[in-house]
Amino acid sequence: MRKEATILRPTHNGERYELTSPTALPKAAGFLWNQKMMIQLTCRGFATAQFMQPEPAKYAHAPNIEAKTFMQPEQNYYAHHPGRFVYVKDNETGELFSAPYEPVRAPVDRFVFSVGKSDVAWVVESLGIRVEMVMGLPTHDVTELWTIKVTNISGRPRNISVTPYFPIGYMSWMNQSAEWNPDLVGVVASSVTPYQKAAEYFKNKYIKDKTYFLCETKPDSFETNQMSFEGEGGIHNPSALQEPQLGGGDARYETPTAAVQYRLALKPADQREFRFLFGPAYDEAEIGAMRAKYLSKPAFDQVAADYATYMERGRGCLRIETPDKDLDNFVNNWLPRQVYYHGDVNRLTTDPQTRNYLQDNMGMNFIKPEVARKSFVTAVSQQEANGAMPDGILLVEGAELKYINQIPHTDHCVWLPVTLEVYLSETGDYGLLKEPVRAANGDNFTVFERFSRSMDWLLKARDARGLSYIAQGDWCDPMNMVGYKGRGVSGWLTLATAYACKLWASVCEHEGETELAKHFRAGADECNAAVNKHLWDGQWFARGITDDDVTFGIKSDPEGRIWLNPQTYSILSGAASPSQIEKMLPQVDAQLGTPYGVLMFAPPFTKMREDIGRVTQKAIGSAENGAVYNHAGVFYIHSLYSLGGQQDRAYKLLRQLLPGPNEADYRQRGQLPIYIPNYYRGAWREFPRTAGRSSQLFNTGTVSWAYRCFIEGLCGLRGDADGLVIRPQLPSAWNSIKVTRLFRGATFHLDIRRDAVEGVTVKHGNKTLPEPRITNIKAGETYQLVVLVPQ
Amino acid sequence: MRKEATILRPTHNGERYELTSPTALPKAAGFLWNQKMMIQLTCRGFATAQFMQPEPAKYAHAPNIEAKTFMQPEQNYYAHHPGRFVYVKDNETGELFSAPYEPVRAPVDRFVFSVGKSDVAWVVESLGIRVEMVMGLPTHDVTELWTIKVTNISGRPRNISVTPYFPIGYMSWMNQSAEWNPDLVGVVASSVTPYQKAAEYFKNKYIKDKTYFLCETKPDSFETNQMSFEGEGGIHNPSALQEPQLGGGDARYETPTAAVQYRLALKPADQREFRFLFGPAYDEAEIGAMRAKYLSKPAFDQVAADYATYMERGRGCLRIETPDKDLDNFVNNWLPRQVYYHGDVNRLTTDPQTRNYLQDNMGMNFIKPEVARKSFVTAVSQQEANGAMPDGILLVEGAELKYINQIPHTDHCVWLPVTLEVYLSETGDYGLLKEPVRAANGDNFTVFERFSRSMDWLLKARDARGLSYIAQGDWCDPMNMVGYKGRGVSGWLTLATAYACKLWASVCEHEGETELAKHFRAGADECNAAVNKHLWDGQWFARGITDDDVTFGIKSDPEGRIWLNPQTYSILSGAASPSQIEKMLPQVDAQLGTPYGVLMFAPPFTKMREDIGRVTQKAIGSAENGAVYNHAGVFYIHSLYSLGGQQDRAYKLLRQLLPGPNEADYRQRGQLPIYIPNYYRGAWREFPRTAGRSSQLFNTGTVSWAYRCFIEGLCGLRGDADGLVIRPQLPSAWNSIKVTRLFRGATFHLDIRRDAVEGVTVKHGNKTLPEPRITNIKAGETYQLVVLVPQ
Repeated sequence: MRKEATILRPTHNGERYELTSPTALPKAAGFLWNQKMMIQLTCRGFATAQFMQPEPAKYAHAPNIEAKTFMQPEQNYYAHHPGRFVYVKDNETGELFSAPYEPVRAPVDRFVFSVGKSDVAWVVESLGIRVEMVMGLPTHDVTELWTIKVTNISGRPRNISVTPYFPIGYMSWMNQSAEWNPDLVGVVASSVTPYQKAAEYFKNKYIKDKTYFLCETKPDSFETNQMSFEGEGGIHNPSALQEPQLGGGDARYETPTAAVQYRLALKPADQREFRFLFGPAYDEAEIGAMRAKYLSKPAFDQVAADYATYMERGRGCLRIETPDKDLDNFVNNWLPRQVYYHGDVNRLTTDPQTRNYLQDNMGMNFIKPEVARKSFVTAVSQQEANGAMPDGILLVEGAELKYINQIPHTDHCVWLPVTLEVYLSETGDYGLLKEPVRAANGDNFTVFERFSRSMDWLLKARDARGLSYIAQGDWCDPMNMVGYKGRGVSGWLTLATAYACKLWASVCEHEGETELAKHFRAGADECNAAVNKHLWDGQWFARGITDDDVTFGIKSDPEGRIWLNPQTYSILSGAASPSQIEKMLPQVDAQLGTPYGVLMFAPPFTKMREDIGRVTQKAIGSAENGAVYNHAGVFYIHSLYSLGGQQDRAYKLLRQLLPGPNEADYRQRGQLPIYIPNYYRGAWREFPRTAGRSSQLFNTGTVSWAYRCFIEGLCGLRGDADGLVIRPQLPSAWNSIKVTRLFRGATFHLDIRRDAVEGVTVKHGNKTLPEPRITNIKAGETYQLVVLVPQ
Repeated sequence: MRKEATILRPTHNGERYELTSPTALPKAAGFLWNQKMMIQLTCRGFATAQFMQPEPAKYAHAPNIEAKTFMQPEQNYYAHHPGRFVYVKDNETGELFSAPYEPVRAPVDRFVFSVGKSDVAWVVESLGIRVEMVMGLPTHDVTELWTIKVTNISGRPRNISVTPYFPIGYMSWMNQSAEWNPDLVGVVASSVTPYQKAAEYFKNKYIKDKTYFLCETKPDSFETNQMSFEGEGGIHNPSALQEPQLGGGDARYETPTAAVQYRLALKPADQREFRFLFGPAYDEAEIGAMRAKYLSKPAFDQVAADYATYMERGRGCLRIETPDKDLDNFVNNWLPRQVYYHGDVNRLTTDPQTRNYLQDNMGMNFIKPEVARKSFVTAVSQQEANGAMPDGILLVEGAELKYINQIPHTDHCVWLPVTLEVYLSETGDYGLLKEPVRAANGDNFTVFERFSRSMDWLLKARDARGLSYIAQGDWCDPMNMVGYKGRGVSGWLTLATAYACKLWASVCEHEGETELAKHFRAGADECNAAVNKHLWDGQWFARGITDDDVTFGIKSDPEGRIWLNPQTYSILSGAASPSQIEKMLPQVDAQLGTPYGVLMFAPPFTKMREDIGRVTQKAIGSAENGAVYNHAGVFYIHSLYSLGGQQDRAYKLLRQLLPGPNEADYRQRGQLPIYIPNYYRGAWREFPRTAGRSSQLFNTGTVSWAYRCFIEGLCGLRGDADGLVIRPQLPSAWNSIKVTRLFRGATFHLDIRRDAVEGVTVKHGNKTLPEPRITNIKAGETYQLVVLVPQ
């Protein structure tokens, strides 16, 4: 493999990233989604795609029966993992390579993996042949649009065969087959989703159980049978490619595949372009319709334009120019895209966890507040009669609570006022609170009343000491055995309850509900007092108290000694006094700080603690056992910005959310800087070899908070009921930044720089504003502001 | 690959089979089991092993998260499928091969895959090196005992590295790791079985979540990290083997593997022998104990001897010498072994289907009747209060009805008298019927009473026409929509009910319960009459009538026109008159006969029939849609023998249960003749390319019936209450056979030959018996009999 000076570079104003080695970051991937599907493509050509019907389903399968589970992209890819590949063979010499890199893994002369916001592409050169591959998606249909361009760059005439190979995998033990369909000009694989009970037949009846691979240009030969294609050669050197043409086989209760071959005689500089569709369908009529709609050059161009427009709608409300160009790229191009993904399709699940659903929609306030508004109504319409929120929000009829949503967690109500705060500051739309919402159980309350009921539920769900019960979990760290007997309590949740009650009390005040405001403030104070009485450990707050009355997350614990979340929420709730904060922050730095971000807790557990539970049993370095869990990290960053005066600590941690900027860091983390993963491997002291590795998973509640930290924290541009408050918190190394902020229909251009001022000073034209706050904002207007911040 | 004259040969009196090509029958496999585990090893080195704790679990895993499901060995193996491999590299030339064949797939000079009853072994020669691999199991513990012998056959000094590679795979997303343990001299991989609910922690607490690979001889280097081992080379050419030694890495929340390397300088003819253990364990103490107990030459020898003794106990009650030597091998060595497997460990499931449990134990009557006796008590102790039998029999505490056992089937009661018949004819032990059995629901009846209650349940579960309701299924062909609305009926089940009632009536008579006998005979007659009235289609019996009153399995049906089971059971139940049988048999031959056995029905369905259900939706050529389903085939053979005069038809079909004897047939079926698979692919007319292929699955109710057909049918040696009846039914091409039959503790040597006799004539010494039946049999005695059968 040719060594590149830098393996990774942003292009097109950072709207693309290019990786120039298939081996440096082998799991590096791009992802695209639309309303009905998601696909993650690694630089080496492996692919994981899911579509909704309505539960997540696949149209390209593993080679064995895979369990239905959540996405786990951190684990190894294996030789037969689904992917999208093109074999190129020199028919004169017999030499073979494959683009992008798998499955042949032949050395290539040039390799570019190019990830854009609207497409994923490669340029691969080997044996004097250039292969360009591009994949795009339409905005609403489930199909992949592939363009494969082949160019003779050898300067001499060439005889080659080009064989796109899209394995389809083990579709079903009940029924699977594949054959060439001459009318559709493509491979059609058929299957039946397995079931046992007669009732399931009707449930599955209209499932898209076919997979198609359609060719715009009729190939010279084809193969639809995986074993016939591979033969004894194996996928790294398929036997079928040793023959003059593919065997034209069918698959009869055998593993289907799609391989088509074009034999090309290319003069120097000759180029051929091929287009293909790959996706699921119910029947051949649907496949025919997809072909007619999409399989042509003009249709591909239209789809690209439409998809770009679709992405453009997710550009968000912030553009920054700072001394940190990588960060600018991320904040301007990629972070809002990731936020948009979460709010747009709810991670392509039918039963998002309630806390995820609310926080993902919190990010949507910065992109499409009307979507966030609707999500509050959807969420509270599923509130239980006693005011509690369910563990998951069902988004389609017939959906069920799955996996972790079957485990009782006690924190869901917290997220209502926490996420509402952003909706109100972005929109000022207090009208939402007056909306009546009828629940499935028949009760009928306004949004305001429902929020109050949830806060009261939280205040009730506490023990005699005033601490919040934890049941089998309170956030995403599954301490499923702290309180499963019904007595254990959570320090974090008690603080989060206080924080939520305070936020809600402010809303009550705004709504003129003074008595209620007092009531919730009193509740918050009670929570804070209880935590201070029972859980302050001298230098930091403990995490909780078990069923057996053992306080944990304290200095005498050899493992799990300090947890990040209680410290964060003691700042947000006001439980921590300035002197307590002064003690806490250095402890967080010293015990939880790593080059890859702040740990969720430390030291990691090396064995099960039966009075804490599952988190302690997980692998060191895994998501939950001592990892850099970015969601917890970004809560902490938010608390630092809310505290003020912590801009350097906060910026350092914000920057650590991303790989880079140097190559060593990219290699260690192993992902492109186009999204924040849910975690980086922890155990930095214990297992430095693996510490920092990305989980490769872009589903995470982190991103809405990260975007919020940039907007409200670093740039300091946060709305209140009547206007926009301006309080930038630049890291001390920066002298100036430029910001464009969209807010309530107006556009603000801010030129923020240090100057000899006492406090933040805002100039609008020639006028200095009396306070750093703009009111009477007119939608459609553009405001040019100069913002001076103290040196 | 060197061409062999014959790819397959029996050795050691047929107690081993040797396959001499890794490519001719790529899925050909041997299997071993003990009380706690099962392993199927293919000739190429892929392995599927399961052990009970108490549900089936794995210690070597797929590379991705695999669904927990029933065994599906017919589907493709893929590059990273679990297996047991040895890489051999010539350190001077860099050349590489692997034994047995995967993953390198290098050409080998000699290949022998040798399957014995107590071990599975290979001899592989390449690059002047011979590798011999042998695997055995202990009788009660879960561990694999591997011997790997390496010999320099090149005639010159050699420098090689030998690298056993036992991939461990994706153990768990919760926690997985591996490291070298110098004290245990081996790789120890650790994991946690994933769970969400706190209660599951306690359920899983003592699960064996570790996998060990222990070396008797300390290797020169090791690798425990799958990715580090493979590198960019991939498993067909691992990067780690390019280095002077393995990297010695650990796996930290990474895929574990076990690879150890021995660097050997071998003089001509030098040989080295290595021993390894591979298996699961709870903790390191257990691993240490396994090492101490098993990892030495003497222990390996002892295990082999013990295991051979264990297998010897399953040799069964029949030895034959016929003109068909392949058949002799099978009947004398392999068929009783397969029967033993089923009865010994109940297919390693905790909830066998009731029909499987009873029929598997039916076979045990010929091997260990005391086991069969106990199974009747276990089964009827789970009888429901209304006399129905449940869909599955739970064998361990905490077991649950899974998969198909959650679907209501209506045939389970049928199998009680059908399988009891064999118990009584083998043992004459009518005492069983007097045993009181208390059920879980508290009711208390004798075995006799419970059987009567089951027969009454069957007679009640019929409609006004007298036909048996089918609910969501009546046997293993899942016609889940014939009667799911509660009205559809089964022709087969009505006939099977008649058959069962008749058998039971005979038992009632023996027990002096004349009134009951009359009652059940009347019930049987009613059933037969109902079937004749509603389901005789002119040439054969229909299969059933749907919820919507549509009769199916009739001549006007373009698909599923004729079904085998109703014809079979009309013979057994006496519903079919001689003239009806005369019409039926040629129809079965013509419509259902194939070179690979008799089809379950024909023609196969090409699309779903919503009034029949799932079987019609499955792939053509799959187990249930138009396949040679051996269980149905062997019922038919049994009915032919019970009919008499059908010895040629019966023998032809019996012979077809096995691959061979010619190579073309072996290649088409693709398995060794060491077991009968549950099915061969059907659709012989529609898809000849795949017809005849073995399912590769040795779990099947077929085998107890096949053994019964040889014993009671072909050899005609069946017990009655007081003796042994002798009525051989030799195929007309045979003039004589010799048989040894163990029966009620005595040994019978029979010399059976054609002679000028009217009927079967039996001579004991000089005495000709008055009828072909021996009574007053004395346990411990040996009887030499000459049996003359008409020419």
